Amino acid sequence: MPSDGLFAGVFARGGAAAETDDRAWLQAMLDFEAALARACARAGLVPDEAAETIAAACRAELYDAAELGRETSAVGNPVVPLLGALRAQLPKDAAAHVHRGATSQDVLDTASMLVARRALGPLLEDAAAAAAACARLADAHRDSVVVGRTLLQQAPPLTFALKASQWLVGMDEARDQLAAVANGVLAVQLGGAVGTLAALEGEGLAVAAELARELELGEPPLPWHAVRVRPAMLAGALAVLAGALGKVARDVTLLAQGEVREAREGGGAGRGGSSTMPHKRNPVAAVSALACARRVPGLVATIHSAMLQEHERAAGAWQAEWETFSELLRLVGAEAAWAREMLETLEVDPERMRLNLETAGDLVMA
Amino acid sequence: MPSDGLFAGVFARGGAAAETDDRAWLQAMLDFEAALARACARAGLVPDEAAETIAAACRAELYDAAELGRETSAVGNPVVPLLGALRAQLPKDAAAHVHRGATSQDVLDTASMLVARRALGPLLEDAAAAAAACARLADAHRDSVVVGRTLLQQAPPLTFALKASQWLVGMDEARDQLAAVANGVLAVQLGGAVGTLAALEGEGLAVAAELARELELGEPPLPWHAVRVRPAMLAGALAVLAGALGKVARDVTLLAQGEVREAREGGGAGRGGSSTMPHKRNPVAAVSALACARRVPGLVATIHSAMLQEHERAAGAWQAEWETFSELLRLVGAEAAWAREMLETLEVDPERMRLNLETAGDLVMA
Amino acid sequence: MPSDGLFAGVFARGGAAAETDDRAWLQAMLDFEAALARACARAGLVPDEAAETIAAACRAELYDAAELGRETSAVGNPVVPLLGALRAQLPKDAAAHVHRGATSQDVLDTASMLVARRALGPLLEDAAAAAAACARLADAHRDSVVVGRTLLQQAPPLTFALKASQWLVGMDEARDQLAAVANGVLAVQLGGAVGTLAALEGEGLAVAAELARELELGEPPLPWHAVRVRPAMLAGALAVLAGALGKVARDVTLLAQGEVREAREGGGAGRGGSSTMPHKRNPVAAVSALACARRVPGLVATIHSAMLQEHERAAGAWQAEWETFSELLRLVGAEAAWAREMLETLEVDPERMRLNLETAGDLVMA
Amino acid sequence: MPSDGLFAGVFARGGAAAETDDRAWLQAMLDFEAALARACARAGLVPDEAAETIAAACRAELYDAAELGRETSAVGNPVVPLLGALRAQLPKDAAAHVHRGATSQDVLDTASMLVARRALGPLLEDAAAAAAACARLADAHRDSVVVGRTLLQQAPPLTFALKASQWLVGMDEARDQLAAVANGVLAVQLGGAVGTLAALEGEGLAVAAELARELELGEPPLPWHAVRVRPAMLAGALAVLAGALGKVARDVTLLAQGEVREAREGGGAGRGGSSTMPHKRNPVAAVSALACARRVPGLVATIHSAMLQEHERAAGAWQAEWETFSELLRLVGAEAAWAREMLETLEVDPERMRLNLETAGDLVMA
Repeated sequence: MPSDGLFAGVFARGGAAAETDDRAWLQAMLDFEAALARACARAGLVPDEAAETIAAACRAELYDAAELGRETSAVGNPVVPLLGALRAQLPKDAAAHVHRGATSQDVLDTASMLVARRALGPLLEDAAAAAAACARLADAHRDSVVVGRTLLQQAPPLTFALKASQWLVGMDEARDQLAAVANGVLAVQLGGAVGTLAALEGEGLAVAAELARELELGEPPLPWHAVRVRPAMLAGALAVLAGALGKVARDVTLLAQGEVREAREGGGAGRGGSSTMPHKRNPVAAVSALACARRVPGLVATIHSAMLQEHERAAGAWQAEWETFSELLRLVGAEAAWAREMLETLEVDPERMRLNLETAGDLVMA
Repeated sequence: MPSDGLFAGVFARGGAAAETDDRAWLQAMLDFEAALARACARAGLVPDEAAETIAAACRAELYDAAELGRETSAVGNPVVPLLGALRAQLPKDAAAHVHRGATSQDVLDTASMLVARRALGPLLEDAAAAAAACARLADAHRDSVVVGRTLLQQAPPLTFALKASQWLVGMDEARDQLAAVANGVLAVQLGGAVGTLAALEGEGLAVAAELARELELGEPPLPWHAVRVRPAMLAGALAVLAGALGKVARDVTLLAQGEVREAREGGGAGRGGSSTMPHKRNPVAAVSALACARRVPGLVATIHSAMLQEHERAAGAWQAEWETFSELLRLVGAEAAWAREMLETLEVDPERMRLNLETAGDLVMA
Repeated sequence: MPSDGLFAGVFARGGAAAETDDRAWLQAMLDFEAALARACARAGLVPDEAAETIAAACRAELYDAAELGRETSAVGNPVVPLLGALRAQLPKDAAAHVHRGATSQDVLDTASMLVARRALGPLLEDAAAAAAACARLADAHRDSVVVGRTLLQQAPPLTFALKASQWLVGMDEARDQLAAVANGVLAVQLGGAVGTLAALEGEGLAVAAELARELELGEPPLPWHAVRVRPAMLAGALAVLAGALGKVARDVTLLAQGEVREAREGGGAGRGGSSTMPHKRNPVAAVSALACARRVPGLVATIHSAMLQEHERAAGAWQAEWETFSELLRLVGAEAAWAREMLETLEVDPERMRLNLETAGDLVMA
Repeated sequence: MPSDGLFAGVFARGGAAAETDDRAWLQAMLDFEAALARACARAGLVPDEAAETIAAACRAELYDAAELGRETSAVGNPVVPLLGALRAQLPKDAAAHVHRGATSQDVLDTASMLVARRALGPLLEDAAAAAAACARLADAHRDSVVVGRTLLQQAPPLTFALKASQWLVGMDEARDQLAAVANGVLAVQLGGAVGTLAALEGEGLAVAAELARELELGEPPLPWHAVRVRPAMLAGALAVLAGALGKVARDVTLLAQGEVREAREGGGAGRGGSSTMPHKRNPVAAVSALACARRVPGLVATIHSAMLQEHERAAGAWQAEWETFSELLRLVGAEAAWAREMLETLEVDPERMRLNLETAGDLVMA
């Protein structure tokens, strides 16, 4: 997944995208190998010097993701080619200690957790800023009265503060859950070929604990290679945040309709123009947030469906997670960035609300 | 959704189904009306006697779900016909106090939370029993060694205890999350027409608090009628449990293959027969659990997609939740019941494991 | 799946629901057994008299779906109990000829095709009526000019005739595809235990051909028990129709907004009322159509995901289709019925369109 | 979407990927502009020379997708920045004729159809080769008898020819539908701002016809900018092919199990190795095909859900299609390439089948 490209302006907005692209995955995989070497060194399984030599070669810029991707076809995952390339960077004696006791899935699963943690940083920051902007709107519009709308029909009025506060509660509950889930599930995976840590000569648990400490990830009760509760919980929490932000964006697009005009996005020069109607002010942030939000449930269904994994490593379901999981982080990250822009620049028009309410008239005041 | 019927033997197994059928929904809607009347009475808005008269008529057996369903077409939800039928049961002075200050969505949303709580009881009980059976298997098979299988290829061995323990950790993490989410999100919805509680004469918050106490549901910070974080979080947690149980069922179907025979389902006479091969022992519980599990992600995607709700009541997205949410509870309930049966009757064959491992031979022992 | 019940007023509208409920499935399964007996008779495998005795007992009203459903648990599908009940209705010599050469999946798969054909009748009729109503609207509003709306922002005008014609083209293309797919894929399934028709003593192909003729279904090139192209194609075509109708419903809800008022649903007394605002006219048909539409993509994803079926009969994926497929027919049937009502009663207001266009003013006329 | 990168070895296999990447989209968008200029020239709306000058600048290598992507944020789609860059390449008098009468959506929708047509070429070629290999297997194994397997339990035998023939029928039906759908739906989109072609001075239909001829795409009855039947039909047909190929891959992974060994993938040196077990032969092609297949249903659900588009251009649902549609083509293209490799190299072991059948013994022969 790229963090730039033709559609990146919409779908790779914000800081999460750069934490989910090929370079980010590559670095996360290399971080695993560096941390594993050091953890093994601490357990006396690898010489300290070899561990540091390995760690020094674990920098993404030394490797070519496209080249590794091409070699992936032979074995079906990018770990084998990466290990080959890493070993090729090293003196023979250090090379022998690379990837000690681990299997490909350990690398990719732990890397996915690192990618998630790094992407969740800017994602949650943007979501927090969106919530803060929403709180300011609620505060500023305690006396702004807006017609209610149920089934898109006018209904009795409420304050815009109440409307914005409901948005806010949704965002806050979703942010809290996502942060809590992340806190609970972001853990290393280290199991070796089938989850027994057999190749670590009885030091498996010690190495796993050291690895977790090194990477600042949790230490799971057992390897979780074929029990996909962790990515599935994260995916679900991302979907809820996507929906909570998307609800606000949905309302903003409706409030910004020409016949309603109760709110519109601000934004600088050129924002919201169109190729045929240059003077229009389109709600670009709300529309883009909705576009991101609409792509999330299908991807989450893929992650949920992929939980039915066979034995000690799944034949297809595990592999189906890689890009999907990354894409989810990228999209919800972009949505949070758009929601932040939307709410930070939202221009609310209480006078127009008053006029619309008057026009709606007796019916809704009954 | 029925709790009996042609396919109910597979998809309405266990106790959750009866808590999600029409009668259960009807009772939950009536429980809302009874509790609202009492809460209003405590706030001095409704005479005590009227409240008790209303409550006495709030028994599902007095109403005909099919008849109400037919009347639903005129207004698009079953609350208006139910209120008509309820009022028709009452003396005029009590009838006037029915549904005080509430709107249709308050009834259905609160009812959905009651339905969820009641269905989650047997669902979590079955899941707990499945986990307990799994723990017993792990305990009993500390010394049973089974060939590992990655990408469905034989790999180095592990103990069956480790295999079962990984299943168990997944089930436990999923059960814990579901219980915690339920604890956090099961709350009343009371907002009136647009969420302002305007028709409750300043007693809205008191009535909502009383209503929550009466129904033993949480009291949310604000009405959540168009912010669907609560059902979405529940749906996500159900999906994770469905996947965690489904992973076990997947493995059991693979272990039960004729060429593997390392485990098979027990069960009484007639269990697992086929119409053409009467002597076969099919893994009915595992297959049925998988059938339930496979239906969950698509339904969860519907709930997630439905979060983009318009203004104070959605035009379609809210309504799309009703049967979907109910179906999710029914299916994951059935899956938990099947998983329990599967694990409680599972016959594991360590001798066959040993033979299979021997046959696999040198390759996997490398 | 019931054709009545609490939510049936919304989701079981129209004639398709009654063709997808338990009674309909039961009859379809019995139709298979009756036709199979006759086909076998024609091939000389079953005495004519026995075939007619069997056929005479193949009436759904003789069986209790709920009772059969309960017995389903032992074997995981309702065919074995139904065969037991059918045989119990028959003299011993006729009973011996029931289900000759067939397996459970033959019964359910062929029944699903009969259910589909019968449900598609009213479904396509309602969709055709919706299209006809749409064509009348287009015809009546050749001179009605309405403001265009892109990204929910006002844009240059178009005629309402063009708007309705685009709706119509979408509905027509979707109806045509659905009819064509149905024509191509509705076929019998007859394979016996593993698809070889081995138990039909060399008369398998003749019996299959006779069975197809008897049931007015197609004759497939081979049994398709584990190759689910047929249900998947139908599901996809249903999704496209659901979306094409849903697009119209989406626009109607937007046109019916109080601030727009360019169209509203008609309908008789009481239609569109609310529990709190009795004088409102809610767009019940459009909202209900949208509610149906929103439930379709997730269900179709379940059908698509279920195509990955194991060997000669899937362990879970096949079973997951049963209610899902039935539900899809019911929901798209209900949506078509709602879309028909919506379009047949739609009151379009050209004068209001003119006023809205004037108000939009210079910007959109640029 | 990239056609190379870390995971490209699995998910961008085959020729479709290069037809769906940024360069391919950019070229398709430019092809639209070139063809539009020429079509307008033929209608007398643009000077011939200007049209040829424009066309000469419509080469993807002149533009930087990443740079355009960054500018996309201001307006929410990449067309405005591309038009800016294209005009900047041109003398002023030619620049004035760029994008005559069209709107951004015309460019992207027509480009999506070109991308689809170009990606479907290699995709259908690989699928055809997979089918041909499957036909050869069926032919070669008329006398190879294999135990049947229902619910993953052993069942009566069938020939491997019948098994492969059922695979083949599924692939052929899915390929036929995809080709037919493509033939029917691949059409230009040209409507201008709201679908009226108003800016083409009465020459709109002529220009649209010319544009279609120029691009070798169909001419639709009306612009289809907000009626998404075309992408939805394609998505559905892709899902069916994904499922038909995935069913074969599923069976291959099961046949390749160490306990079954009735088939295995061939492939050259190094194929199917693992990082911990270098001598293993993993079924990389089958596993990768399954990984692709599992990602398809969720993406198709996104396309189906996105059909509920507002008025003359959707606020989010349209934009959600772009990468999703492209991804679907890429993934099903990769799956077809993997399925081809899998079937072209599949080594079937009739002797082992015979042994397995003997071992299964009397039960299945009953």
